[in-house]
Amino acid sequence: MKIGMLQLNFLVGDLVGNTDKIIAGYKKAVAMGAELVVASELALFGYPPKDMLCYKSCLDAQDRELYRLWKEIGNIGLIVGIAKPNHGNGKPLFNGAVLLRKNGQIDKSVGVCDKQLLPTYDVFDEHRYFESGNNPTEIFDIPNSGFFNECVAILVCEDIWGGNENNQSHKLYQRDPVKELKNGDVNTLIVINGSPYYWGKGDVRFNLVSGIARKLNCNVVYVNQIGGNDDLVFDGRSFAVNENGECIAAAQPFVEEILIVDTDSSKTVAYPSDGQNLEDPESIKNLYQALVLGTHDYVRKNGFEKVVIGLSGGIDSALTACIAVNALGKKNVLGITMPSPFSSQGSVDDSLTLAENLGIQIITIPIRDIFEEYGQTLKPIFEGKQLDVTEENIQARIRGNILMAVSNKFGYLVLSTGNKSELSVGYCTLYGDMAGGYAVISDQWKTQVYELAKFINQEDKQYTIPKNTIEKPPSAELRPNQKDTDSLPPYDILDSILRQYIEKQKGVNEIKIPEMFGGKEVVRKVIDLVNRAEHKRVQMPLGIKTSPKAFGSGRRWPIAAKNL
Amino acid sequence: MKIGMLQLNFLVGDLVGNTDKIIAGYKKAVAMGAELVVASELALFGYPPKDMLCYKSCLDAQDRELYRLWKEIGNIGLIVGIAKPNHGNGKPLFNGAVLLRKNGQIDKSVGVCDKQLLPTYDVFDEHRYFESGNNPTEIFDIPNSGFFNECVAILVCEDIWGGNENNQSHKLYQRDPVKELKNGDVNTLIVINGSPYYWGKGDVRFNLVSGIARKLNCNVVYVNQIGGNDDLVFDGRSFAVNENGECIAAAQPFVEEILIVDTDSSKTVAYPSDGQNLEDPESIKNLYQALVLGTHDYVRKNGFEKVVIGLSGGIDSALTACIAVNALGKKNVLGITMPSPFSSQGSVDDSLTLAENLGIQIITIPIRDIFEEYGQTLKPIFEGKQLDVTEENIQARIRGNILMAVSNKFGYLVLSTGNKSELSVGYCTLYGDMAGGYAVISDQWKTQVYELAKFINQEDKQYTIPKNTIEKPPSAELRPNQKDTDSLPPYDILDSILRQYIEKQKGVNEIKIPEMFGGKEVVRKVIDLVNRAEHKRVQMPLGIKTSPKAFGSGRRWPIAAKNL
Repeated sequence: MKIGMLQLNFLVGDLVGNTDKIIAGYKKAVAMGAELVVASELALFGYPPKDMLCYKSCLDAQDRELYRLWKEIGNIGLIVGIAKPNHGNGKPLFNGAVLLRKNGQIDKSVGVCDKQLLPTYDVFDEHRYFESGNNPTEIFDIPNSGFFNECVAILVCEDIWGGNENNQSHKLYQRDPVKELKNGDVNTLIVINGSPYYWGKGDVRFNLVSGIARKLNCNVVYVNQIGGNDDLVFDGRSFAVNENGECIAAAQPFVEEILIVDTDSSKTVAYPSDGQNLEDPESIKNLYQALVLGTHDYVRKNGFEKVVIGLSGGIDSALTACIAVNALGKKNVLGITMPSPFSSQGSVDDSLTLAENLGIQIITIPIRDIFEEYGQTLKPIFEGKQLDVTEENIQARIRGNILMAVSNKFGYLVLSTGNKSELSVGYCTLYGDMAGGYAVISDQWKTQVYELAKFINQEDKQYTIPKNTIEKPPSAELRPNQKDTDSLPPYDILDSILRQYIEKQKGVNEIKIPEMFGGKEVVRKVIDLVNRAEHKRVQMPLGIKTSPKAFGSGRRWPIAAKNL
Repeated sequence: MKIGMLQLNFLVGDLVGNTDKIIAGYKKAVAMGAELVVASELALFGYPPKDMLCYKSCLDAQDRELYRLWKEIGNIGLIVGIAKPNHGNGKPLFNGAVLLRKNGQIDKSVGVCDKQLLPTYDVFDEHRYFESGNNPTEIFDIPNSGFFNECVAILVCEDIWGGNENNQSHKLYQRDPVKELKNGDVNTLIVINGSPYYWGKGDVRFNLVSGIARKLNCNVVYVNQIGGNDDLVFDGRSFAVNENGECIAAAQPFVEEILIVDTDSSKTVAYPSDGQNLEDPESIKNLYQALVLGTHDYVRKNGFEKVVIGLSGGIDSALTACIAVNALGKKNVLGITMPSPFSSQGSVDDSLTLAENLGIQIITIPIRDIFEEYGQTLKPIFEGKQLDVTEENIQARIRGNILMAVSNKFGYLVLSTGNKSELSVGYCTLYGDMAGGYAVISDQWKTQVYELAKFINQEDKQYTIPKNTIEKPPSAELRPNQKDTDSLPPYDILDSILRQYIEKQKGVNEIKIPEMFGGKEVVRKVIDLVNRAEHKRVQMPLGIKTSPKAFGSGRRWPIAAKNL
């Protein structure tokens, strides 16, 4: 049977526009010979619609578009994800899939299934809106070109993860919808998804789905949306496997695609692995593509053409600029270098070189005079006080103000440039370098930042990011001779501690680092820094999640608290 | 039977300190004659512990403290809320209550019950951490001074809300733990809570609990924590009712209290109503107390002594200063007035008068010179461009930078002063007047701000908040002759639209305002402003929730989206 997979990029809440896309995709897939077409989870809304689901007016709009969509459906069925009313007790909606067929019948849909497992961890809040589907998924007969109808079952995203464990002995869920299907029940299992990216997740998905196909002895067709929606990037990476678990179709990641899979074909294809490997350029490229798409979509979906970036001469802003140019084109990226009295000439030169290499416009706005004016104005109050972090922050905030002024005057979006290591330990200034509409690399450890920079230069076969930017010791240059390592352990040690604490959720006593770097005392210090910086992160701009545990909606931490 | 109710103020995550408090409260209650003592939901952690619950190290610490607590328990039982391991499939924890009794036995606890209904709406995320308790609550025999033992059942917070409806015909939950208890099953139902305040919620709780008591023909003892924890304030307001639903004990709201209720006594007492009524000074006082406690606890629990507030001469900053003085004492509040070239002398005078009335220190830091220096610095780039909102925002951000500089230099926390109406329509500057650690009145509509100001002056029997501040038309004073009503409808109309959209979740076509104020067109414009300002609110500081729907964790909205 030929199944059309609609891997589309939706604008959340754009019910009319998204439905138009689905209709166009459906028609194209049918023209390409599809006997069944599949769109992704909550496709009319775009995933995740968040509290829009609490508005009757939004749900009414979905109903109108669903009806319009149905009117476009001919003999070939369409499976699409919708928010479906729950007419019983409990949350007012199901996260459902509906099989639309017209076929001369009056029935608007021949079948529905409701998502049974609702992810409510990390960035997911599905129990906030949905009731769990109570019934095992139905099995449908779909007419195809062969003699026998195709037996098809539908599951929604998390439904296939019920076998996963939350620790060594227990499952994440009390049910497992996959286990409720028996070997031989269906020819093809359709899974519709709104599955956000993290680096390496593609391989995890493929291994899971491949195992399910072998267990149930059926084809599995996995359809996912693509695109950046706020802090989430969806990589698409839709694919299908045969009953041996072999890949028989695979869409390109990070692009829209209408892909037809013939489940009867014996041809296999390569699955586009995204294995998380800092040594492998193909793997790094995958991560880079996620950052590019996330940036592109946040800027464009918010109606901006251009962005402005403060270039410090350091590696974080250089990487951010490269991503922006890749996402938006060099004409749409403006760099501003804002030297302070403590900036080295080298840093300004590095920024100018970067801009030249990228072909972007750069302007220099020295902040010395404004900084001195702050000093004059605050003199009566600060009389007799030592210089300290206050004066460092004033400089950072002058830069923030200038970037925002350019943003206001010209309508450019400010991209901020902080990395995950800095944001973890609070090595950043609220309203200063943290200012901006989107924090492009806020989920990249400093060690990853270096690898991404290396990757860019290797791809470009030149030092697009200047050699000096890569090789000089990182510094905020907010006081004379400042270096990051003055107050922090080396970045590889720091990142190791942070990964264990934030991503692996280990406590002080469980975190291991080599004794030569200070042992438990350093661990304690770093974790205290992380906890003390929570008040900054609660005010940070959205950034692109590429790890299993990013700051933002995936990590919810009390501020007025005693931390362990 | 005499039951001791521990209405305590916990620091989230301070397992040792909170346990100390519970032990001291237990001993005091026993000394006062209690035959059973009750602490609140998740009392060892303090509610809500958020993602601390994902850390094994935090759960281990709870175990240690629970054991220490148990060792202090004598013959008199203690009911206390804990995060309890789930040894089956599903989320790794239950939100449980445990009845600790020592009594010479080896059993550490004689009974437990697991919360069955997990709130996962508004600010609540309980499905993120907990599995629903599967079993109807147990009934325990508690020895008392009478001949027969007391039959007691325990429910946890949301468990008693299962009868509530999510619309006219459906219940919020598929189960109702209260209905699983039958009339006559128990003498006393104990409900332990971590129930955050909103204005008027006390009355809602009382009516619900009173009805349950009548239905089950039993006493109900409702124990709640108090205190500000980040964006939430807990009002306590612990109480007990007899089988007629009459109040037989009531703790004062917003203060710690060890209260003994004798369920056999025939004496009834008044429940401290908090009815939401802008005309009633007692009702307004209740709201004011919530703001005072929220501010006090956020400042103190984060280790700050003093706060700094930018005083504009307007009513928002005046109200914020009054709250701060009430919460922290006049010695701990610093006002800064930062006149710009567009500030009226009247505004500066009003700030000075306010400071004098409150007895707080105030310093004047004119921003004219810094503002002019920004103009000079940006001249080459802004050449030929009209003055616009850019220059207004620069002024606001200079003030933000100055406040943060004072904060950094002296270790004061900045309180920001924006109200809910402004924050709704984006009539505020990111990193400018939005800058600060805590947004005290961010959940107060402008119309409420006026009522709170009136209340303060009435209580003080003088114009603490200057008459001129109250009577002059609101203005940001960021350009000549600017008034809020230049670009917004009158505040009563604006607030009416915003309440319907944000709190009642109505769409454009459902929102009604008088035709003379512009009808649907004005509604459309206001809602568009709300949606366009989401990117600002995502970066706003935490504020105190006092309404059923505040910005912050209770309202989750996509930014890159098409809004209806």
